[in-house]
Amino acid sequence: MSLMKSWVASANSPETPFPLNNLPYGVFSTPGTDPRCGVAIGDMILDCQMAEDIGLISLTDNGLFDVPFWNELMEEGPAVWAALRSRLTGLLEQGSTDQARVEPCLVPMAQVEMHLPMVVCEYTDFYSGRHHATNVGTMFRGAENALPPNWLHIPIGYNGRASSVVVSGTDVRRPWGQLKSPDHDLPAFLPCRRFDVELEMGAIVGTASEGPITVQEADDNIFGYVLLNDWSARDIQAWEYQPLGPFQAKATATSISPWIVTKAALEPFRCDTPPREFALLDHLKDVGPMLYDIDLSVTLAPKGKPASTIARTNYNQMYYSAAQQLAHHTTAGSPMNAGDLLGSGTISGPEKSERGSLLELSWGGKEPFTLETGETRSFVEDGDTLTLTGTAKGDGYTIGFGDCFGTLIPALKDPYAR
Amino acid sequence: MSLMKSWVASANSPETPFPLNNLPYGVFSTPGTDPRCGVAIGDMILDCQMAEDIGLISLTDNGLFDVPFWNELMEEGPAVWAALRSRLTGLLEQGSTDQARVEPCLVPMAQVEMHLPMVVCEYTDFYSGRHHATNVGTMFRGAENALPPNWLHIPIGYNGRASSVVVSGTDVRRPWGQLKSPDHDLPAFLPCRRFDVELEMGAIVGTASEGPITVQEADDNIFGYVLLNDWSARDIQAWEYQPLGPFQAKATATSISPWIVTKAALEPFRCDTPPREFALLDHLKDVGPMLYDIDLSVTLAPKGKPASTIARTNYNQMYYSAAQQLAHHTTAGSPMNAGDLLGSGTISGPEKSERGSLLELSWGGKEPFTLETGETRSFVEDGDTLTLTGTAKGDGYTIGFGDCFGTLIPALKDPYAR
Repeated sequence: MSLMKSWVASANSPETPFPLNNLPYGVFSTPGTDPRCGVAIGDMILDCQMAEDIGLISLTDNGLFDVPFWNELMEEGPAVWAALRSRLTGLLEQGSTDQARVEPCLVPMAQVEMHLPMVVCEYTDFYSGRHHATNVGTMFRGAENALPPNWLHIPIGYNGRASSVVVSGTDVRRPWGQLKSPDHDLPAFLPCRRFDVELEMGAIVGTASEGPITVQEADDNIFGYVLLNDWSARDIQAWEYQPLGPFQAKATATSISPWIVTKAALEPFRCDTPPREFALLDHLKDVGPMLYDIDLSVTLAPKGKPASTIARTNYNQMYYSAAQQLAHHTTAGSPMNAGDLLGSGTISGPEKSERGSLLELSWGGKEPFTLETGETRSFVEDGDTLTLTGTAKGDGYTIGFGDCFGTLIPALKDPYAR
Repeated sequence: MSLMKSWVASANSPETPFPLNNLPYGVFSTPGTDPRCGVAIGDMILDCQMAEDIGLISLTDNGLFDVPFWNELMEEGPAVWAALRSRLTGLLEQGSTDQARVEPCLVPMAQVEMHLPMVVCEYTDFYSGRHHATNVGTMFRGAENALPPNWLHIPIGYNGRASSVVVSGTDVRRPWGQLKSPDHDLPAFLPCRRFDVELEMGAIVGTASEGPITVQEADDNIFGYVLLNDWSARDIQAWEYQPLGPFQAKATATSISPWIVTKAALEPFRCDTPPREFALLDHLKDVGPMLYDIDLSVTLAPKGKPASTIARTNYNQMYYSAAQQLAHHTTAGSPMNAGDLLGSGTISGPEKSERGSLLELSWGGKEPFTLETGETRSFVEDGDTLTLTGTAKGDGYTIGFGDCFGTLIPALKDPYAR
């Protein structure tokens, strides 16, 4: 597929992340106005609420855009998802007869504040990046036992905390937590010393399900994808995670990109999962290309200084697709709902420069790495801004998610001062 | 405190779980009507929606009972919680001048179907019963290493799946899952063979919080308590839970009692946590009696046969109170919301007859136990009905939760047949 031309000039640049081919969904506000649904097109946002109010969009009896989140569209199902995409394309394509009526609905992106694009119903985080799991396992259990015995058979996942999900741009406060140094007998309650970033993609469930669903059904039920940074407190995690998994280590914040890129926009970029070491059981088997070729990067900018790229990798490095994760998620009968968010797990490639966490980049803090500013890092320091980017490259166009960034601000002096 | 007399005669029996001292909150429907909020009194239910509609309850400008869940009351905060309890007491106490107006709002409990009393916002399950953790740890790691090193320092918990929480009476379908027998090299996808019950109490967050809160603040924020059965698939759990904790093993269903017993009703039954082996860190220290003296039991009834009591214990066996669990839950900054549900962890006492799971009662299936019918059990069998009960005994009255029961129905023959 090549670039689809829009009458919004900025959408036709080969560099814009928001050409007509993309049409990602977000929630925005301008100074003094309430948050509302919008679609990115070039350097503008189409105000969907206004477009619906003046009759440019009219897909359901009760309307879709009287609420500042995209869950209502998700609940309408794939036929309405397709109808909206088709209508938006018609409104914004070059030669549209509606241009004059649409123009008043466009808001410059530079003027807006972005909000969470959906109500995050429940949040699950997986651990399905093989290079990441191998790196972490090698650090903690040695190279011989790097992957847990179940890893090649199931997409390991755990439930996270939906209330901690924040939109890109939200500051993240360094947490306190219970830590135990190897050289102390007893734990202490202290600010986290090993705060980390995790480069992930998030899949959003659009269609609800009850009971087990197949991988194909799971793929059908996915609405779209976001960038996701699962901020992690490694020292809290080390002390708490046995035997029942990470809890407070992952409870501070999970940042997602402001824009949901729909499955439809990513269709040209589908690719296969890697070769299997063990055949997957039938209910998890691949039934088509369900990963996506999306270039990913992480940058780190110390306070007031330029950003250094610290990792580059690709979503095609995953061992399990989001469809396989979602299918596994339903095996025991758990209902899934519109707005459920599934983190892929940290995405690392085989090379050192492709590692999606500071834990891996600094090898557990033992090998601090150097930024372009000359400073070194083992973990995130106060004032650092971490930014994730994601880009799918088409023929003369690119699909982006908007940056997913957050700045680490210092821990509270006393978390219980009132 | 002694029995408070009501003009509803059945509420004055020493055996009723629902005297005027209790006033628990549920959601009910009668044939052909929509679910609505109600309060149990003796063998009747006060229809709160009707009582509000006719002006008997008028506490907030917008009303509390136009929705079939109790979250709106929770969000109003402790002053309104107290005002409602006071008003209900005034309406239902002996000598109330409102008796004639209240009587039409009473519905016989025998005619109703119960629904989830609240929208479960997020669900967290803890592991704070020392005897349970010791039993399970002894089975899996030996008596010397029974308790993980962190166990005596933090209330270990993990996030669960809110969408799987169901009200008492809902059938539970035996799940399929990925299992690996010790005598096989590879896992298989099969119906669970070791399905279990977990006797727990659930604490419900009423007041939202942002950032870390103290144990006292946590206790203040708790709205009430329910009985909770965290159904568990032990064979799925054994294969999946390392390294990131239980996931599909706990995703089939979690049953809760139909009635939320308020913190106010449980006030006379407060008791202390047990002596500490290590002093807790300051932010988790006890600041008053925050456990409750509540007798608990589990019965098992094979299909069509009478029930046998298989365990009796008490909520006072917990090592950590729900307030301590909630305080720990917030240490890393996670927001908490009205309707968040916190499972205590399985409650077992020191004796064999006090074990709150079949895993412990049958010692991992190695020591099947005998029911009063003469049948033996290692784990739950198809058709078995498991029932939890909870009773706080006051001076001439008892406080109950209503039974928390569920019947295990057979696994689907083919979970993917459509």
